[in-house]
Amino acid sequence: MTSHPTHEPGSVGAVTPRTAHFDRPLTFRSGAVLDAYDLVYETYGTLNERRSNAVLVCHALNASHHVAGYHADNPKNVGWWDNVIGPGKPLDTNRFFVVGVNNLGGCHGSTGPSSPNPATGKPYGADFPVVTVEDWVEAQARLADHLGIERFAAVMGGSLGGMQALQWTISHPGRIRHALVIAAAPKLTAQNIAFNEVARQAIITDPDFHGGHYYEHGVKPKRGLRVARMIGHITYLSDDVMATRFGRALRSGDYNFGFDVEFEIESYLRYQGEKFAGYFDANTYLLITRALDYFDPAKDFDGDLNRALATAEAGFLVVSFSSDWRFAPERSRAIVEALLHNDHDVTYAEISASAGHDSFLMDDAHYHAVVRAYLSKIDLG
Amino acid sequence: MTSHPTHEPGSVGAVTPRTAHFDRPLTFRSGAVLDAYDLVYETYGTLNERRSNAVLVCHALNASHHVAGYHADNPKNVGWWDNVIGPGKPLDTNRFFVVGVNNLGGCHGSTGPSSPNPATGKPYGADFPVVTVEDWVEAQARLADHLGIERFAAVMGGSLGGMQALQWTISHPGRIRHALVIAAAPKLTAQNIAFNEVARQAIITDPDFHGGHYYEHGVKPKRGLRVARMIGHITYLSDDVMATRFGRALRSGDYNFGFDVEFEIESYLRYQGEKFAGYFDANTYLLITRALDYFDPAKDFDGDLNRALATAEAGFLVVSFSSDWRFAPERSRAIVEALLHNDHDVTYAEISASAGHDSFLMDDAHYHAVVRAYLSKIDLG
Repeated sequence: MTSHPTHEPGSVGAVTPRTAHFDRPLTFRSGAVLDAYDLVYETYGTLNERRSNAVLVCHALNASHHVAGYHADNPKNVGWWDNVIGPGKPLDTNRFFVVGVNNLGGCHGSTGPSSPNPATGKPYGADFPVVTVEDWVEAQARLADHLGIERFAAVMGGSLGGMQALQWTISHPGRIRHALVIAAAPKLTAQNIAFNEVARQAIITDPDFHGGHYYEHGVKPKRGLRVARMIGHITYLSDDVMATRFGRALRSGDYNFGFDVEFEIESYLRYQGEKFAGYFDANTYLLITRALDYFDPAKDFDGDLNRALATAEAGFLVVSFSSDWRFAPERSRAIVEALLHNDHDVTYAEISASAGHDSFLMDDAHYHAVVRAYLSKIDLG
Repeated sequence: MTSHPTHEPGSVGAVTPRTAHFDRPLTFRSGAVLDAYDLVYETYGTLNERRSNAVLVCHALNASHHVAGYHADNPKNVGWWDNVIGPGKPLDTNRFFVVGVNNLGGCHGSTGPSSPNPATGKPYGADFPVVTVEDWVEAQARLADHLGIERFAAVMGGSLGGMQALQWTISHPGRIRHALVIAAAPKLTAQNIAFNEVARQAIITDPDFHGGHYYEHGVKPKRGLRVARMIGHITYLSDDVMATRFGRALRSGDYNFGFDVEFEIESYLRYQGEKFAGYFDANTYLLITRALDYFDPAKDFDGDLNRALATAEAGFLVVSFSSDWRFAPERSRAIVEALLHNDHDVTYAEISASAGHDSFLMDDAHYHAVVRAYLSKIDLG
């Protein structure tokens, strides 16, 4: 018998995504305008009377609004941060009202490249505006308005989600009391951008990409998406965890001298690539990697992160993981230094963890204790 | 006026590749047999009367037999290790007789996938046998026979070339006096294999690959090769050197919000990918990355590198580079430890260098001094 999520202590249980429609035009950082759009979101827990207990959870590259619990029609579809969120969990839904939202440009229900473009009646495809972290934060702020949340108790996220939390403190300092910036960086390095660019080129040069208008051709650039995901996966895992989990283990016990799967690591990567290409939208992948590339709050301040963060009012929890080579601890420390420079209230934890960048998704007792402790001290009065 | 290689002090000058034909069948480690084959090679300097001064230089992934000097019909085509080899250079051609050879399976003139398969009259394509480092060493030993070289003063190479030098000490301990094993590893890690596998998948899933028989279709899987090369390049450079050379520098000075080149690092990678796809053979890329995956001399000794190296008789120079994350210094130290365990004569140098794995190709004074010193002590009497 497989265990059912409802039986798990600490699950928020069955959850139902909702859709908010917005018809006030949103102007993107690029200058492009989206006249109307939908945002799909989920909530867990109850908004208190003072509306002081709302926490926004921002997703990274391939996740969505489905952060915790499960969908009644698919009990195996458990939220991507379910180990952090629920009654009695580090982000305790007995105390907090949690909001998860699929970002604009996504492929999980919010308006994105696969949505119909009102101007043509066909999917936006490559005509969907290039989105930035700032644009996502604006859309999230409108969702907060829609939900009657003037000020979040906290905005939190890992990786790109952490960048959104950081951007909230700059874009809307008065609307966020705490930012939990986990496994993030103040901007991408050349190497980070390089990995994104290779992934994009794999997608864009796939003959099934059709300049981003593949929907009309009834195909998907799956070859490119597979390769993109495989590249991504390598950067999410540490060298050590790959060595421990896979090492040089052979599928059949010995060399077969060919290009089929020989090593277990190949099997793993191919499986991950295939799975991803089955459900993820290629245009969304392009948009999200570009948003990562562009994120650089210091850019508007002559490259000075200290100045970029000067107006923030939030308290900060910054968390990094020792084996994360995608966004290494030194990148988190750069954020901490800029916050300290501004005399902001900041807690920093560098977690000893072996799983690399993906550590932020893992059930690590020390890490979860840090998040729990920080959130428990937030005064909701 | 551009400087001409002949004017450069230390150049071996104009060189001419030669072809050796072999018609004694070669049995590969896989069991496959090649009835006859050609090896293209170059030599610099003069073989002395005692035939004691020959040095074999082995190439890595994308290089060839053209190690030093230039080709008279294309003076810009300077050998890939010209900064190391020539009169008065670290590998001094006034003293040594240097041999460079394009490995079997290559695409620079030696028999490989693009060569005609005698059985069909068409290019071998995917029917070319999967080669291993051991197979290359056997072919190189036959070239040595052909050249009248019973014993090499040294075999040397960087990266995959260093692995060949190491294999020589195991396969033919009596035929190699010194091994220079530079920027190498005793075997690939799971992460190393993962990068190779993504590159291969990019090639194999390119619709122009045609199961490896693209020659007959008059096309090349250039899309896949471009992506493969871009991935490779990221692993050849250190994060730091990418940051220094490119950082987040923008092509046009500001964001254009699109998927054309925005960052200089993107431009660099696309250029490298395009150039490579123009001259390199996709099947050769598959074969060479697989040879890298398979290299593991300890495998035949229950994973015990000490035992694998027990019968070696050569003296060793092992060199690593501090910023090399593809084959990090600790990987070189694993070789050194196994050599010391066997009381072999070994010199180890860990060079402080910023360029990552590619450091072994760079003109670094400390590194070159180490190679020069080691080679100068070899007694040719």
